[in-house]
Amino acid sequence: MAEARVDRRLAAILAADVSGYSRLMGVDEEGTLTALKACRRELLDPKIAEHRGRIVKTTGDGALVEFASAVDAVRCAMDIQRAMAKRNVDIPEHRRIAFRIGINVGDIITDEGDIYGDGVNIAARIEPLAEPGTVCLSDSAYQQIKGKLSLDVADMGEQQLKNIERPCASIAFTLTGPQAARRCLFPKGRPSPCFHSRT
Amino acid sequence: MAEARVDRRLAAILAADVSGYSRLMGVDEEGTLTALKACRRELLDPKIAEHRGRIVKTTGDGALVEFASAVDAVRCAMDIQRAMAKRNVDIPEHRRIAFRIGINVGDIITDEGDIYGDGVNIAARIEPLAEPGTVCLSDSAYQQIKGKLSLDVADMGEQQLKNIERPCASIAFTLTGPQAARRCLFPKGRPSPCFHSRT
Repeated sequence: MAEARVDRRLAAILAADVSGYSRLMGVDEEGTLTALKACRRELLDPKIAEHRGRIVKTTGDGALVEFASAVDAVRCAMDIQRAMAKRNVDIPEHRRIAFRIGINVGDIITDEGDIYGDGVNIAARIEPLAEPGTVCLSDSAYQQIKGKLSLDVADMGEQQLKNIERPCASIAFTLTGPQAARRCLFPKGRPSPCFHSRT
Repeated sequence: MAEARVDRRLAAILAADVSGYSRLMGVDEEGTLTALKACRRELLDPKIAEHRGRIVKTTGDGALVEFASAVDAVRCAMDIQRAMAKRNVDIPEHRRIAFRIGINVGDIITDEGDIYGDGVNIAARIEPLAEPGTVCLSDSAYQQIKGKLSLDVADMGEQQLKNIERPCASIAFTLTGPQAARRCLFPKGRPSPCFHSRT
């Protein structure tokens, strides 16, 4: 096993994307883009900054964010989901933007501002397991916030993540072992359901 | 549960102390102190610096060290134990200095350079579980290095840590649950046994 020296750090990695983004774009391309940009400017970016997160990259409808603390990452995610639920109350269901959020804790590799490794991959793999408007944590992330935050938690059990066929022992264990996604957190006092079917 | 805003970060916490320190001091007070200071100056401090650790505090015979990466913390610990084993080869057994090292990963609280929280307490509680000259990891720490370092690992199973009677749910779970100390790592190619009886 190679032990080449690389820059590593423990981090909580948050992956987020918009549920049903393609469908929303199909319904109203310009309206969806405008609404998504407003969400980012008015809600996501300020919340991430408030909780000391660092946006590593954004995609069309998603973001990858790094936090030094798992507690900060989960607080940020819950704040975002609570605020999004409020924001969606007066919007017709078929136009609502709802985020799925996945959080993992990992000993990641950092290189020129970007981040790499199992820790990042697992965050991206558990994010699609979250119901729209909720947050899904890996067991590694959950162990670091348990007893520190007051949350409604549903144990999702062990989950099979994408790419389980990867011929890499360290990945295989994280996908099927105790570190696999096991917990889905629901914001307390969510004012109204904002679930879309998965697309 | 209070959610007061504090500075938190994920860290690997390394706790180390000298096995049988009181006995060694009883045999030769000044000689032990001189040997221990030499160990620190020539070996511990440079290894910790090399692996980007930060010495949070030292006690008479111990140290508490913080690392940004669990992989770095474990590499540092294994380097120290390998070097100590070499150093002990020509020293009579009753005068050998051998460290126990415990490592945990936790979302710790930082305040004016000091560190606090379960993450720190668990590191201190698993350190005495290590045989002299070896390293004991909590499950949280082990999950972050699994597949990333090539090590001989012995699963110690779930361990009952000191102060299990603490009336704090989050502590109780870490002491008896899957995060409790489970792994003991032995340096590969350790040149000679350097075990003392526990005192």
